[in-house]
Amino acid sequence: MIQERTKIRVRYSETDQMGFVYYGNYATYLEVGRVDVMKKAGISYRKLEEEGIGLPVREMNIKYKQAALYDDEIEVITTIREMPDRFITFDYEIMRGDELLITASTTLFFMEKGSNRLTRMPQKMHDQLKPFFS
Amino acid sequence: MIQERTKIRVRYSETDQMGFVYYGNYATYLEVGRVDVMKKAGISYRKLEEEGIGLPVREMNIKYKQAALYDDEIEVITTIREMPDRFITFDYEIMRGDELLITASTTLFFMEKGSNRLTRMPQKMHDQLKPFFS
Amino acid sequence: MIQERTKIRVRYSETDQMGFVYYGNYATYLEVGRVDVMKKAGISYRKLEEEGIGLPVREMNIKYKQAALYDDEIEVITTIREMPDRFITFDYEIMRGDELLITASTTLFFMEKGSNRLTRMPQKMHDQLKPFFS
Amino acid sequence: MIQERTKIRVRYSETDQMGFVYYGNYATYLEVGRVDVMKKAGISYRKLEEEGIGLPVREMNIKYKQAALYDDEIEVITTIREMPDRFITFDYEIMRGDELLITASTTLFFMEKGSNRLTRMPQKMHDQLKPFFS
Repeated sequence: MIQERTKIRVRYSETDQMGFVYYGNYATYLEVGRVDVMKKAGISYRKLEEEGIGLPVREMNIKYKQAALYDDEIEVITTIREMPDRFITFDYEIMRGDELLITASTTLFFMEKGSNRLTRMPQKMHDQLKPFFS
Repeated sequence: MIQERTKIRVRYSETDQMGFVYYGNYATYLEVGRVDVMKKAGISYRKLEEEGIGLPVREMNIKYKQAALYDDEIEVITTIREMPDRFITFDYEIMRGDELLITASTTLFFMEKGSNRLTRMPQKMHDQLKPFFS
Repeated sequence: MIQERTKIRVRYSETDQMGFVYYGNYATYLEVGRVDVMKKAGISYRKLEEEGIGLPVREMNIKYKQAALYDDEIEVITTIREMPDRFITFDYEIMRGDELLITASTTLFFMEKGSNRLTRMPQKMHDQLKPFFS
Repeated sequence: MIQERTKIRVRYSETDQMGFVYYGNYATYLEVGRVDVMKKAGISYRKLEEEGIGLPVREMNIKYKQAALYDDEIEVITTIREMPDRFITFDYEIMRGDELLITASTTLFFMEKGSNRLTRMPQKMHDQLKPFFS
C-alpha cells in the first residue's frame, strides 16, 4: 500500500450557514489528498492529463462523523490499498488532531481524453506504483 | 413514498478542466433536489432552520455513470422511500433526457442548533410527511 | 442595448457561516446572467466554445449593497449597453423583489482557444447583436 | 502598511472547462490572503467572529492579467496600505513566480453580528494594527 498525509486549512468559502464545512466540499479535500498520494509515487496528475489520460470518479462514498469548522487545520490521510488495474481506489480519513471527522473512498477509472473511453493505466504509472505493492 | 423532479441548468462554474461537471458539485444538485422534495410535502428547510433544527448529512454515496456537461439541462429525481424517524434518507437519480447520469443516496439526521445534538424529527414535519407513507 | 432578467434560487452550498451568500459566489450569478442575455440575442455560449472561441473575464467590479440569503429568489438583470468590439462589457443588478442587492460589471475578451490569443468577435455574433444597437 | 505573502496550490475543483481557474474562485484566494495578513498582526478572523464581529465585503475589484492553471503554485501578496477605521481595504497581487496574474482590491466593513449593523473596528484590533501605520 501507499499512504500520504496532507494538511489543509479550512477556508471561509468552504463553510455554509450551519457553521460547518459544506458537505459537498469534502470532495475537494479528497481530491487534494489523492493528488498528493500520487505525487509520493512520483506521479503528477497534471502531467498525466497533459499526456492524454484523465481520471474521472466512478464512485464516491463518504461518512460524516464530525464537522470541520472554519480555520481548522485538518489532515487528509489518503491510502491506495491495492495495486490498481483498470480502476484505482483511494481510501481516506480526515482528522482534526486525534479526532476522526470523515471516512471516505473513491474509485476512479483511466480515461483516454478526446475519445472519453475507458483505457488501461499507463505503463509508466504502473511501474511507479508497483514497488509499493509487493 | 414521496418523489419530486427538479430541472437544473449546468453552470460554467460547475465544470472542471476535464470538460465535465466537477464530481463534488453533484452534492449541490442533490441538495437542491432534497429541498424540493420537502417543499412538495409543505416543508420549508429554511423555516426548519429558523425554528432551530438543522439537517446535517451523515452519509453520501454517489455512482457516476455519465458526466453532465456545461449548459446541459439535467433533472434530479429525489425520493424519500421510507417514513423518516431520527434519520432521513433521500435517493436520487440525475437524468439528462432518458440518459441516467448519476444514482445517489444521502442520509441526514435532525440536529438541534446551538447544542448541535441529535434530536427527533419535529412533530409538524412528521405530520406533513405521514400521508405519503401509508 | 440588450437586457435580460434571470431568476435564481439561492442554494445552501452558496451560503457561508455568516449566513449570507459567500461574496465570491455572486460571480457565478453574473455568469448565469450573461449567458442568458446572449441567449436572448440567439447566441449560445456553449456553441461559441465548440466553435473555438472562449470569453475569459478581464475585469470584474462588484458593489455589495445587501446580502442575499439562503432560499431567496433573486433576479439578475444583465445589460450590454454598447455594441461590443474586441471587448464585451456586461452590467448587472441583482435584485430581491424591489431591493437592490448588487451592482456589478464585467469586461470579457474574445480568445481563440488553443492559441489562447486575443481575437475578434465572430462575424455571426456581431450580426446577432447588431440589431440591438442602432 | 502591513503585507503578507501566502502560497496556494491550485486545486482541480477550482478550474473550469476553459482549462483556467474559474474567474469567481479568485475571491477565495483573496479571502485566504486577507486572513493571513491579519494573522501577521496577531488578529484571528475566527476569534473576531466568535466575539461577535463580522467583516462583510462591500466592494471587490479584480483585474485578470494571466490565468492560473491547475496545480500551479501561486502566491497572494496582500497589503493593507492605510490604517482602517470603519472600513478596511486590502490590495492584492497574485503572482506565479515573477508573472503577475491578478491585481485586486476589496473593501470590507465591521458588522455587529446579530443586529447586522455597521460598527467600529474593535479597540483591540485597532491596537494590533496601529504599529504598522506610523
